Amino acid sequence: MRENSTPRPPVLPVAPTSGRLRPLGLDEVRITGGFWARRREVNATATLGHCRHWMERVGWIGNFRAAAEGRVHRDRRGREFADSDVYKLLEAMSWQAGQHTGTGADTRTDAGIASLTETIAAAQEPDGYLSTAFGRPGQRPRYSDLEWGHELYCYGHLIQAGVAELRTRGESELTKTARRAADHVCAAFGPGGIEGVCGHPEIETALVELARATGEQRYLDQAALFVERRGRGTLADTEFGRAYFQDDLPVREATVLRGHAVRALYLAAGAVDVAVETRDDSLLAAVVRQWETTVARRTYLTGGMGAHHRDESFGDDFVLPPDRAYAETCAGVASVMLGWRLLLATGDPRYADLAERTLFNVVAASPSQDGRAFFYTNTLHRRTRGTAPDADAESPRAESGTRAPWFAVSCCPTNVARTLALLPAYLATADDRGVQLHQYADADIATTLTGGHPVALRVRTDYPHDGRVTVRITRSADRPWTLSLRVPAWAAGAPAWLVDADGTRRAVAPGTAAVTRAFRAGDEIRLELPVAPRWVGADPRVDAVRGTVAVQRGPVVYCAESVDLPAGREVDSVRVDPSARPQDGPSGTVLAPGALTVPDGRPEAPWPYAVPEATRAPAVRASPVVLVPYYSWANRGPSTMRVWLPVREADVEADGPERPLP
Amino acid sequence: MRENSTPRPPVLPVAPTSGRLRPLGLDEVRITGGFWARRREVNATATLGHCRHWMERVGWIGNFRAAAEGRVHRDRRGREFADSDVYKLLEAMSWQAGQHTGTGADTRTDAGIASLTETIAAAQEPDGYLSTAFGRPGQRPRYSDLEWGHELYCYGHLIQAGVAELRTRGESELTKTARRAADHVCAAFGPGGIEGVCGHPEIETALVELARATGEQRYLDQAALFVERRGRGTLADTEFGRAYFQDDLPVREATVLRGHAVRALYLAAGAVDVAVETRDDSLLAAVVRQWETTVARRTYLTGGMGAHHRDESFGDDFVLPPDRAYAETCAGVASVMLGWRLLLATGDPRYADLAERTLFNVVAASPSQDGRAFFYTNTLHRRTRGTAPDADAESPRAESGTRAPWFAVSCCPTNVARTLALLPAYLATADDRGVQLHQYADADIATTLTGGHPVALRVRTDYPHDGRVTVRITRSADRPWTLSLRVPAWAAGAPAWLVDADGTRRAVAPGTAAVTRAFRAGDEIRLELPVAPRWVGADPRVDAVRGTVAVQRGPVVYCAESVDLPAGREVDSVRVDPSARPQDGPSGTVLAPGALTVPDGRPEAPWPYAVPEATRAPAVRASPVVLVPYYSWANRGPSTMRVWLPVREADVEADGPERPLP
Repeated sequence: MRENSTPRPPVLPVAPTSGRLRPLGLDEVRITGGFWARRREVNATATLGHCRHWMERVGWIGNFRAAAEGRVHRDRRGREFADSDVYKLLEAMSWQAGQHTGTGADTRTDAGIASLTETIAAAQEPDGYLSTAFGRPGQRPRYSDLEWGHELYCYGHLIQAGVAELRTRGESELTKTARRAADHVCAAFGPGGIEGVCGHPEIETALVELARATGEQRYLDQAALFVERRGRGTLADTEFGRAYFQDDLPVREATVLRGHAVRALYLAAGAVDVAVETRDDSLLAAVVRQWETTVARRTYLTGGMGAHHRDESFGDDFVLPPDRAYAETCAGVASVMLGWRLLLATGDPRYADLAERTLFNVVAASPSQDGRAFFYTNTLHRRTRGTAPDADAESPRAESGTRAPWFAVSCCPTNVARTLALLPAYLATADDRGVQLHQYADADIATTLTGGHPVALRVRTDYPHDGRVTVRITRSADRPWTLSLRVPAWAAGAPAWLVDADGTRRAVAPGTAAVTRAFRAGDEIRLELPVAPRWVGADPRVDAVRGTVAVQRGPVVYCAESVDLPAGREVDSVRVDPSARPQDGPSGTVLAPGALTVPDGRPEAPWPYAVPEATRAPAVRASPVVLVPYYSWANRGPSTMRVWLPVREADVEADGPERPLP
Repeated sequence: MRENSTPRPPVLPVAPTSGRLRPLGLDEVRITGGFWARRREVNATATLGHCRHWMERVGWIGNFRAAAEGRVHRDRRGREFADSDVYKLLEAMSWQAGQHTGTGADTRTDAGIASLTETIAAAQEPDGYLSTAFGRPGQRPRYSDLEWGHELYCYGHLIQAGVAELRTRGESELTKTARRAADHVCAAFGPGGIEGVCGHPEIETALVELARATGEQRYLDQAALFVERRGRGTLADTEFGRAYFQDDLPVREATVLRGHAVRALYLAAGAVDVAVETRDDSLLAAVVRQWETTVARRTYLTGGMGAHHRDESFGDDFVLPPDRAYAETCAGVASVMLGWRLLLATGDPRYADLAERTLFNVVAASPSQDGRAFFYTNTLHRRTRGTAPDADAESPRAESGTRAPWFAVSCCPTNVARTLALLPAYLATADDRGVQLHQYADADIATTLTGGHPVALRVRTDYPHDGRVTVRITRSADRPWTLSLRVPAWAAGAPAWLVDADGTRRAVAPGTAAVTRAFRAGDEIRLELPVAPRWVGADPRVDAVRGTVAVQRGPVVYCAESVDLPAGREVDSVRVDPSARPQDGPSGTVLAPGALTVPDGRPEAPWPYAVPEATRAPAVRASPVVLVPYYSWANRGPSTMRVWLPVREADVEADGPERPLP
C-alpha cells in the first residue's frame, strides 16, 4: 500500500491516506465537453435549483425552521429521513461551488449554501444533536427507533456536506455544524454509550472522510466501531429479516451483498474506508469478496443493483427479473462510490469497468434531459405505457412510467445531483509512476507527480459514441513517467488499439494499457476502442432472460421502445436474430436485425398454458428493430420498453415487410 | 336464471336465490375416501386444534378477553386484523361440526365453538361494534383508519362464521353476535352513515350470505352499497396506489383484477353475490370479464394469483415470475370462492376447471402432511434451500423455506382450515334436469331433484392419481334425468371417454359430458380421463418462463426438487427434452426425459453477461429427471425446487450417465 507523500489535495470526495492510487481532485480534473459536460451543465443550472424548490415546497427545509421555532412536533412534513436530502443538496452545491473556488464565478450557489446552512444550524441542539424528526417535546425520544429512525444516516449526509464544504471553500458554519454533529455521535455511540448502529448505514463512510479531512482520529475510531458492531443483531428482526439492515452477519464474515441495496453498498463503502485507514487487509478482502460475488450473480446488465421492490433489496443469486428490476438510482450512486474506493485501494480496473457501466446506464438514466425529473427505480422492461406522473405532485417512488419531478421518498434526485457535481473526481488518479485515466471524457487534467513534477493532459473524445480517445500531453515532467489507460472489459472480443506518441500502433487487451516514456508537451497517445454494437447474452442461471439477448454499444446498454415501433405495437412484439450483426443507425440509434410478431386475428387463448407446440412463437415479419440508448428511454413520453429482446425462433414468416426502414 | 324452487338446503356456504345451478350441501355430499378425505381428516383432527393452540399462544384469542376486561389498550397482541383469524377458525369448526349434526359425533368441537363464542361475545359493545383493535379508551377511534384498520373485514369473517353456525347447528350465541355486528354495520355505513368502504373487502360477500340465510333484505342492500361505493376514491391514495384497494375503478368498469390479490378476489366474489341476488346481469358480466382476463394473463400454472411480494398484488399482464411468485394461499382460497359463485351463476365448467387446478396446486400445497405447518406464499421456484422455520415462533409470511407453524400475519392456516372443512360443498350441484359433478373424489351424494324425486350416487375413484371416475346410481328418480360430468380442460389433446350404463363408450371433449336416462339403482357411468403426464408450455408473453416447460399430470402440476438430484446438486442443473414423453415413475413420481448440467471445473465468470456464444448452455449428461407433485414439495426438508424446467439445448453431452435410474 502506498503512503501518500504528496500534500492532501483539497477538492476531493474521497481522500485515503493509503492505497494503490492517489485520487485527483476537482481542482486537478476539469470536464470540458461531451456527454458528461452536458449532464453536468444541466445539473448545475437546473437540478440544484429544482431540488431546492421542491424541498421548500414539500416542507423539508421548513422542518428545520419549525424545529428552531419549537413547532416541529406539529408542523413537520415528510418521512423520518427528509433532513438527509437537504444535506445531500448542500453537498452537491458545495462540490459545484468548489469548481469555481477563487474565481467568484458562482456567488449565487455560495449564497444558497450560506442560507441553507443558517436554517439547518439554527435547529441544532446545544449538544450537537440535530434531527427534525426526533427528540423534541411531542416527538419520539432520540434514538428510540434505530431501525427506522435514520438519525445517524442523516448525520452522515450532513457530515459529507461538511466535508465537501471544508475541501472546497474551507471552514464555515456548515463545517462547524457537521463537526458538532460528529462529536455528538462519538459521545452518544462511542465506548460506554449506546451499543447500537443505524438501520441505514451512511455514517460510517462520512465519519472516515471527516477524519481524513480534519485529522481527528476519534471520527475514524467511531466509524470502525460502527462497522464492527454491525451484523451482531443489535437491530430488531423485522418482517424483512436482519439481512435487510446487514445486521445478520458481521461485515468480515459476509460473502455477498444482501438486503436493502443502498444500505449494503453504503456499508461496504464505509468498511473499505475503515480498512484503508486502519490498514486492515482482511476487512478489505472481505468487501472485495462480497463485491465479486455480487457483480457475478446479483447485478443487472446496466450495473443496476437490487431486484426486489418489496424491500428494495438484492434477491437471491441470479434473481434479476428485467420487468421487476428495482435497480434504485441511489444504489447506482452507491455502487459507484464503493467501486471508486476499491479502485483507489487496489488499482484494479474492474472497479472502474463497473462504475462506467453504472454511470452510463443507471446514473445517467435517472435524470430527464432538462434535469427536472428523475427515475427512482430503473426497470429493464416496462410492459405498460402508463401515464406521465403529475408534474405538480410527489410521485410514488417505484411507479413512474416516465421521470417524475419529485417523490414522497426523494433520495435519488439529490444523489444524482451530488454525483454529477463531483464527477470529475472519478476520472483520473496518480501514483508514483504517473497518471491513470479511468473514465473517458473531454477533460483537462493537471497534477503534480511524486517528486514535484507537474504534468498536464488534455483528453479529447466523443466517447461513448466514438471509441477514440486522444490524450495530448500539454505539460510533462522531464523524466519518464507512465500514462495508463483503462481498456474496458466490454472491449473483449474485438480489437482495441493503442497508438503511441511515435505513431506505433499495438493491440491492447481489456485491463490497463500503459505507455511509459519521457513525454514532451505535444505528444499524443490515442486509444481506439471497438464501440460497434454487439449482442450480449446472460448466464443461463439468470432464468428471467432465458431465450433473449441484449445490445450494448461500448459501455452503453440499448433498448427497444414502443415509440419506435409501428403505431399501436408494443415491445413484446419484438424478436431479434443474433446470427446477424446489429448496426449503427441514424441519430445514435442501433438497428438490430430482427422481426416483429404479426397479429394473426386469432382470439386470445383463455388460458396461457398449453402443450408446448401450441405456445410456439407467433408468425413474424422481418424488420430491423430500432434501439436507443437505455439512458434516454421515456424521453419521448410514456412507452413500453425492453432491454432483453427475445430471440426469434424458426417460425412462420408472414409476407412482406412490416414497414419501410426508418 | 333459475328461481330456486326446492327448499333451501341447510348446510351450504353459498346459497344463491337465483342462478344456473343449485349447490348441494354438506348434508347432501359426503367425501368418503381418497386424496381429499385424507386432507380433511388431518384438517379435522390436527389443523383446527393447531390453529386454536397458536391463537391462544400468540394472544389473539386473549385480545377478546382483554377487551371484555377493559385492558385491551395495554395488552392487545397481533395485527389489526387478528380478530378475523379467530372468526375463520370458528367458521371452520362450524362446518366441521355440521357434518355430524344430529349424530352427537363431535361434542368436542361443539364445546370449542361455545367457549370461543362466549369469549368473543363478551367483547362486543352494546351497539354491536366488535373490534379488539379500535374504539376503546387508549385505542384509536372506531373507523378512523378505513384503509388499514380492517374492522369491516373482521366483521365479514365473523358473519361468515355466524352463517356457518346458522346453517349447521342453528341459532346460537354466535349467530346472534354476528347479526348484532351486521346490524351495527348497516346502521353505521348505511344511507346517511359513513360514506366509506373497508380497505380489505370481505364484508360484501358475508352480508349477502347473511341476507340469504336470514331473509333480511337490509344486509343485501348494505352489501350492494359497499360494492357500488368502491372504486370512487373514498380510500386514501397510499404508496401502493388506490388499485391496491380496488378503489381506483368502480367494479362495473374494471376489466381485470388488480391490486392486492385477496382483496380483489373477495370483492369480486361479493360482487357476484350482489349481482345474483339483485338480478344485475351487467354487474355479473363485469366480473366474468375480469375473471377471463385475469385467468388469461395474470394466473400462474398452479392457479396461483398475485405476482408481487411488495404489495401482495397482481402484476401487469404476463408478469408471472416463478421465483418471485407470491401466489398467496388465501388468494387461492379466494379464487376457489369466486369460481364457485360464477359456476353456480352460469353453469360454465371453466370455473370448476380453475377451481380444481387451484385446489390441487395451491390449497393442497399449503398445509404440511400433518396439518400443523403451512405455506403462506406458494412460489414456483425456490432457489436456495434455506432452513426450516422455527417450530416455536411466528414466521415472516413470505420467507418460509419449508412450511411454518404460524405467521405474524396468519390468515392462511385458518383459510385452509375452513376451505377443507366445507370442501364437499364444492363437488356437486343440481338443476331441474339432474345432477352435475364438478370435482372428483370418492363421495356419496344424495339429493332431491325438482319435483321431489330423491336420487343418490356413489362416486368411486383414485383421482387425481387415476383418471377413472365411476358413478354408481344408488337411488334414482323414476323418470329420466341427467347426470353431467365435467371433462376438464386439461384433458384436451388426449382421448377422454364416457362409458354409459349400457356399456356404450364414447369419446368426450373438455366441457360437460352428460348422460340422460331413466337411471336405475345399480347403474354405473364411468368417466375415463387421460391423466398421463404431459408437457406444458407458456404463452411467449410470459417472459419469465421463456425456454422452459412444465409437467402436468391430470390437474396436478409437478416440480423438480433438489432432494431427488445427486447429492449437492440444485435444481438449476436440470434440463429437459420435450421431444420425448414424460412417464409415470415409482411412488407417484414422474420421470421427465432430460439431463443434468455437468460442472466442468471452470471458475465462475466474474460477470454474468457476455457474447451470446459464451453464455450458451453448459455440457449436460442424460438423466431422467424425477418430478414430484408440486403440492408435496418441501415435505422432505428444505430443498431447491422448480416447476418450469429449462429445455435442453443442442449442446455438448458429457460421457456416461449422471447416475443410475432411481
